[in-house]
Order: sequence, then C-alpha cells, then structure tokens
Amino acid sequence: MEKGRDNSLHGKGEGDRLQRMREIAMDIFRAGLQAVDPEEAVYRKVTLEDGKLRVGERVFDLGGFKRVLVVGAGKASAPMAKALEAILRDRIEGGSLVVKEGHGLALGKISVEEASHPVPDMRGVKGTQRIMDLLSSAGQEDLVIGLISGGGSALLVAPVQGITLKDKQEVTRLLLSCGATIHEVNTVRKHLSAVKGGQLARLAAPATLITLILSDVIGDDLDVIASGPTVPDKSTFLQAKEVLQKYSLWDKVPPAVRGVMDRGVAGKIPDTPKDGDPCFQRCHWEIVGSNLQALMAAREFSESLGYRSMILTSRLEGEAREVAKALVSIAKEVKATGNPIGVPCCILSGGETVVTLRGKGKGGRNMELALSASMALDGMEDLVFLSAGTDGTDGPTDAAGAIADGTTIARARRLGLSPLRYLDENDSYHFFEALGDLVITGPTRTNVMDIQVILVE
Amino acid sequence: MEKGRDNSLHGKGEGDRLQRMREIAMDIFRAGLQAVDPEEAVYRKVTLEDGKLRVGERVFDLGGFKRVLVVGAGKASAPMAKALEAILRDRIEGGSLVVKEGHGLALGKISVEEASHPVPDMRGVKGTQRIMDLLSSAGQEDLVIGLISGGGSALLVAPVQGITLKDKQEVTRLLLSCGATIHEVNTVRKHLSAVKGGQLARLAAPATLITLILSDVIGDDLDVIASGPTVPDKSTFLQAKEVLQKYSLWDKVPPAVRGVMDRGVAGKIPDTPKDGDPCFQRCHWEIVGSNLQALMAAREFSESLGYRSMILTSRLEGEAREVAKALVSIAKEVKATGNPIGVPCCILSGGETVVTLRGKGKGGRNMELALSASMALDGMEDLVFLSAGTDGTDGPTDAAGAIADGTTIARARRLGLSPLRYLDENDSYHFFEALGDLVITGPTRTNVMDIQVILVE
Repeated sequence: MEKGRDNSLHGKGEGDRLQRMREIAMDIFRAGLQAVDPEEAVYRKVTLEDGKLRVGERVFDLGGFKRVLVVGAGKASAPMAKALEAILRDRIEGGSLVVKEGHGLALGKISVEEASHPVPDMRGVKGTQRIMDLLSSAGQEDLVIGLISGGGSALLVAPVQGITLKDKQEVTRLLLSCGATIHEVNTVRKHLSAVKGGQLARLAAPATLITLILSDVIGDDLDVIASGPTVPDKSTFLQAKEVLQKYSLWDKVPPAVRGVMDRGVAGKIPDTPKDGDPCFQRCHWEIVGSNLQALMAAREFSESLGYRSMILTSRLEGEAREVAKALVSIAKEVKATGNPIGVPCCILSGGETVVTLRGKGKGGRNMELALSASMALDGMEDLVFLSAGTDGTDGPTDAAGAIADGTTIARARRLGLSPLRYLDENDSYHFFEALGDLVITGPTRTNVMDIQVILVE
Repeated sequence: MEKGRDNSLHGKGEGDRLQRMREIAMDIFRAGLQAVDPEEAVYRKVTLEDGKLRVGERVFDLGGFKRVLVVGAGKASAPMAKALEAILRDRIEGGSLVVKEGHGLALGKISVEEASHPVPDMRGVKGTQRIMDLLSSAGQEDLVIGLISGGGSALLVAPVQGITLKDKQEVTRLLLSCGATIHEVNTVRKHLSAVKGGQLARLAAPATLITLILSDVIGDDLDVIASGPTVPDKSTFLQAKEVLQKYSLWDKVPPAVRGVMDRGVAGKIPDTPKDGDPCFQRCHWEIVGSNLQALMAAREFSESLGYRSMILTSRLEGEAREVAKALVSIAKEVKATGNPIGVPCCILSGGETVVTLRGKGKGGRNMELALSASMALDGMEDLVFLSAGTDGTDGPTDAAGAIADGTTIARARRLGLSPLRYLDENDSYHFFEALGDLVITGPTRTNVMDIQVILVE
C-alpha cells in the first residue's frame, strides 16, 4: 500500500524492526477501514432471518409491509444499497439514489443518479425529484429504507418553491466566504431546501422509515450528517434570517431568498419538522459506520496482535501541526514512564483536524500532522505514527496520509530535505513522497474522517 | 483561592454541582502542588537515620565523610536547603546558594546570595564565585550536596576566562532573537561558562557529589535543567561555533567570544566534561520533584475521592489554543462513550505549551488554554477544565491559570464578552477575571511547569 520505500536508508536491525512496525500500523489502519466499508457496515448491522429484519437492536416484521422502498444520497450510498439488495433480494420494490460522480454501481431495482459534488448540479436536482416522487407515493403500509452518507447534503438538492438552484448556489457561496460556522451555513441551507432538515421524513410519512447512516462528522450528530434529511431539525426560519443579517448578507442574497425567509418567518411556509413532529412517529435511525466504529475495529485487531490498546478520542479537532505535538507528547510519556498505558501499545485517535494554509505546497491534514509529528518524535526508537483519511484521499492528492517514525527526520536530512521548510510551505505530500512514506490506499468508497495509529514497543 | 465568583449566574442545582466540581479540581491541583513543594520534595526523597543518609534508593554513610558542604542555584533552592538543614542539622559545615531576588530564606550555615533573573547580574557572578571557591576546597573525604532548580542557568553565572559578563549577555541576546532552538542557545552558553555543562562537578571532584534536582523542563533531561552544572555534557566547542555560524552571528559576537571558541575548538581550553569523565565517578543525581511527580500525587488524591484517573502526559507541548481542542476532544469522548476511561474520571496532563502572540492583551499559556477549552466544551454538563502553572504565575499576571466549564461561554455572553475576541487579543486574563474564574494561588516557591485537571462526571 505504500509507495516503494528505500530500505537501504535504515540500519539493518532497527530498520527491520521499524519496517515490521510500519506494516503492523498499516494493518491496524486497514482493519479500521474494513469495519466501515459501506457494504461491510450494512452487513454488520442489518440481517434478515425468517422474514424478520434486524437493524441494530430493533426488529421489523417484513410480512407487515406492503412495499419496501430504498432511497439514499451520499458518496457511499451505492455500496450500502448493494449490501441491502443482497440482504433483502426481491423484497425491494424499487428505489432511487443520488451519488457522487464516479461513485455509482450497477444495482437491481434501485436506480442510481450520479451528480456533481461539492457544487450541486441539475443531475442532483433530477435524482432528488425522483426520490421525492417515490416517497410521495409511500403509504402507511410501506417500509422506506434511507441510506445516508457524507456528501449527501450537496447531492440531495431540491430548492424550496420560488428559489432556483442558482439562487441556492449564490447563497452558499456568500455564506462560505463570510466566516459563518458550518452550523450557521446549514441553518440557512435547510431553510432554502424542500428535503433537508427532516423534510424527507415528512415526505415519507406515514410510511415506516429506517435510515442507515454512515457518519462523516465529529460526534455523529444525526441532524448534521448530510443536513439530516430524515431527522428532527433544531433550527428555524428566524435563525436562518438572523444568520444572513449577522454577516450582512441580507441585502446581497437574491430577492427570492429574502422572500422565502420572510414568508417562513411569518409562518406562511411550514418550518422544518421539529422533535415531536408526527412525521417522525415511525422513524428509526441506525449509524452503521462511524469513526468510533473504525477505531473500535482497529483496537480489536491491535489487541489480537498483543498490543495494549486505547482509543483516545474519535472527535479530534484543532490545527494539525499543533495537535501532532500533543499526540506525540502522550507517546513519549508511554515510552518513558508507561503512562497512560504500558508498552507494547497502540494508541488510536480519530476525527478531523484542520490546516491553516500559509504556503503553496501540496498536502493534506493527515500528511501535515505526520510531518509535524515526525519532528516532535525525532530520534525515538520503536515508535511509528500513522495518520490517514479513511476515504483514501488527503487534501488534493492521491495519498491517504503518511507514516512517520524516529528516523524520518534523519532520512529527510540525508536527502537534503528541510522538514521545517516543507511544513512552512504546507508541502507535506512532496516531503513524504521523497521518503517513500506516503500511505496510498486508492479510493476506499467510505468516509468516516481520519484515523491516527501510534504504535509503541 | 479563586477570585469572588458570582454564583447567581448559575441555575441552582447544576450550579451547585459545578461549584463542587470546581472546588475538587482545585483540590486536585493543590495536591499536585504540595508534592513538589521544594521542602516537601526534599523530605520525601532524603532521610537520615543512624548516620545513614538515604537519597532515593541510595544510602550514604555520613560517618565516612569529613565535611558536608551544600551548594545550589535556582528559584527553589533556598527552601530545598532549609529542608536539608532540618535533616542534616549540625552535620552541615557550610554552603552557598544563588537564588532569585526575593526567593531567599534565613538559613543556618548556608549563605544565600539573591541575584537577578532572567538577565544575570554581578550579584550572580559574586554568589557563583563563592560556590566555586567552596568547591575548590572540597577533597576526596568531603560530601557536597547540590541543590538545583529552575532558573539556575541565569543565576549560576561565571564567564569563562577572557569573557566579561557583558560579552555573555550580548551573545545571549543575539541568540535569543535569531531563531536558534533552546538546545542551540545552551550549547553556546555552556561553552562561554566556567560552571555550566558539568563544570561544577569538575570543580567539586574528587569529593562525593549528590545533586538534588527540581525539574522544570520537559522530559526532565538532567543536562538541560539549569544547564546541567553537575551533569556530563553532550555538546562541544565545535558545535557551539557551528551554531554561531549557522545563524550568521559569528561576525557579530564580541571578538573575545570568537577567541574563546577558536581556542576551544583547537583544544587549548578543556571542553565541558563528557560522560565517562573521571570527575563524575562519585556523582549521584536525584530528581526530587518533577511535573510527573506532581501529576502522580494529583492522581493519587483524585483516586482517593473515587475518580478513575489517568495521566495522559507530563510532556505536553504545542500552541495552547490548539492543544486545548485536542484535550477537550478526549473529554468529549469520555462523556459520550467512556473512552479512554469511564466517568466519573479525572484526566491529568502537564508540560509547557506556548502562546504565539497576536494581540496586545494580558494573559498566559494556561489561561489561553482554558479560554480555548471553554469554547470547545461550551454547553457540556458535569465537566470542569483547569489549567494552571505550578509556580503560581501564568504569564505577566497575578494568576496561576483559570477554570473553564460548560457554562463559561454562556456566562461570558451574558456579561457582553466575546470569547473569540479575547482569544484573538491574547487577553485571557481579563476574560476570566470578569467571570471570577481565575486560579489565584500566589507564589508557590516551586516550578514544575503547568498542570491540567479535567474532571468529568
């Protein structure tokens, strides 16, 4: 999985040992990936036996339903649907998905629309309309299964009446460049949409609706993932209008947007359905894959290899280069005093750090985290540090991340590379490419943010 | 210990619970402090019984020594000497210390010189000369006890022959503003000194020398604390010259400095003593207090209160505001899933973060860490986050640090304070002062860097 490493750069004994540890770290990362592969994730949580559909802890009697319909949106929704087809076979009556360009699969009765991401396009509008039509036909005796994954917010696109796709794009553009938080951006977007913020559930009612979710957000908040199309919404038209006013965008957005907001605030357009709304009476949600689930699988695998293992967090946030120092400070304590856990051990974390761009290099948050870590752990023996994105892509590169160890800096210097300069230039990709220390997985079909594996012996 | 808080800002039930948790967090911090109080730290590690002096694991027969001499340098060395006088009583023949202005104590046979810190002055030179004279008189039958603590590097000042104090000050000034690492700065300073980098041990030889050390550096590296006056040095004249050349300072330093460097590189001046040098044959070192020891005492105390406890690291480094996010991400995982430890729990860390100044406010790394943490943990229940310096001083303020909890941001907003603005201005002191959430301890006489206490119920 790694680009050809030059082992001659290592002394023999220690080099062999490090090479083995690096391979183990990759295996642990892969064990995490496997658990959140969209097909695998659905198989783990959904089973059918004697007509009983088990979804997590809940059991549904398929005999009680007239039709089973499948809808979904997100990058990973096609493989999720493929697993569901294998489980439910001819019980599926029909269905419709919108997935990212290049992320489609040949399915049975479920139609797949590929659309643009992250900027929505008319194919997304078309696919979403097909989903809405299908849901409008659903009745009390039907079972609808929703398949939601990351990217669903841009793919599931249905401007509220009176608004064009262009209006929505314009508002999104303004919001993304004004400093608004992602929460504020979503508050506005949910109120310019006919499907986000629980409105898909309103369309599906009174059918039973089971939503299977692959989470790509910190904390797995259901109303955040793909803008929560089947989940009670907490935000209101009034809050959406206030966001536009707060960032002085009220006079800049298209007039039709102001019109919708004002009619919404006045109560002339129904707000997004809130907790307790009858449309959620027959709704169930199941997170089939998440960063924590990947970390738990990675922990289980590392323990099977004899490592003591610890999940620090699945909610890691902060500037990548600084967070790296905090993580290495824990690894150093392990090595020196056996706190918080004794060697040999595997310390796992996950989440989504950020990179504040200063230079013009090529890189991503995982590679930058690994570069900063390699400086902090320079010279340490029997320690490897891997950071990689579960979608197989770190920033605009073909790498998922990188591996650092105590020899990284010395090897870089021998090649004439200045680690600090690469860090200053945000050029972590070329740094690790030169060392042969990139983690290359290719597209993984899944996305539960990033994972760090620290192995200490 | 906290400035008057306004409890009326809290709802009654949750407020009472939080208030209790805040007091417990303070008690846990205090338990850590107590263990590294300089007197207490010496009493813990040094005992005398039937003429046997026990220092950590080692035992010395006092009857075998003619004289017992005490020397020392550092902010905490006077209280360390006070404890030693109480233990050894009339067995101490004499001694000499250099301590920071205002950090002296009335002692018995040990003379105390107060000198300037962090910029050395002639009082430091005088006190150091007294120590050198005393050590020069020490013979094989004497026992010398050295008391080293933070600040010793600036207080123990003896320019090597041919160099004036002014020359050293000029070189230090150039080094500190050129971007050199603290390791590089010390490499040069050790080679312009007659006492740093093990040279005090050379003066004391062939006497037996026991050095008691209160560590104020990450990793407790003995050759770093107070520039390691009694410890084998790893750096050379050649490396010192190379540092000056690397930062283009060679032509800027006083000519006398170039002269010393060149004579040293040529071998005409003895280099600092290295590992294996005979002068270390009768040398022993004991760390009597460190960040880890404070954390261990804090852990023990928190466990006695029924909290599961974990020491994450005693080596925490990185930008305070970003490190805060990583720490809070762990606390959030605890709360949500019981990883890496179940509630009720106490997560402890320590070390020394940094603050990159952007604004013109008043603050310190602990208060800035707490401010960033308060934003990351906004709204969380049953959680408090304390960060404070063990010396009782955070930045140029009268506070040691601050306490944050899930109500901090809401209380700030009610007072019209914008947390982000205070963070941008590096004005954490005024933020927490307004809330009454500063941690005020007054001077503690000790310094083992900073401690964070995260309490989750």
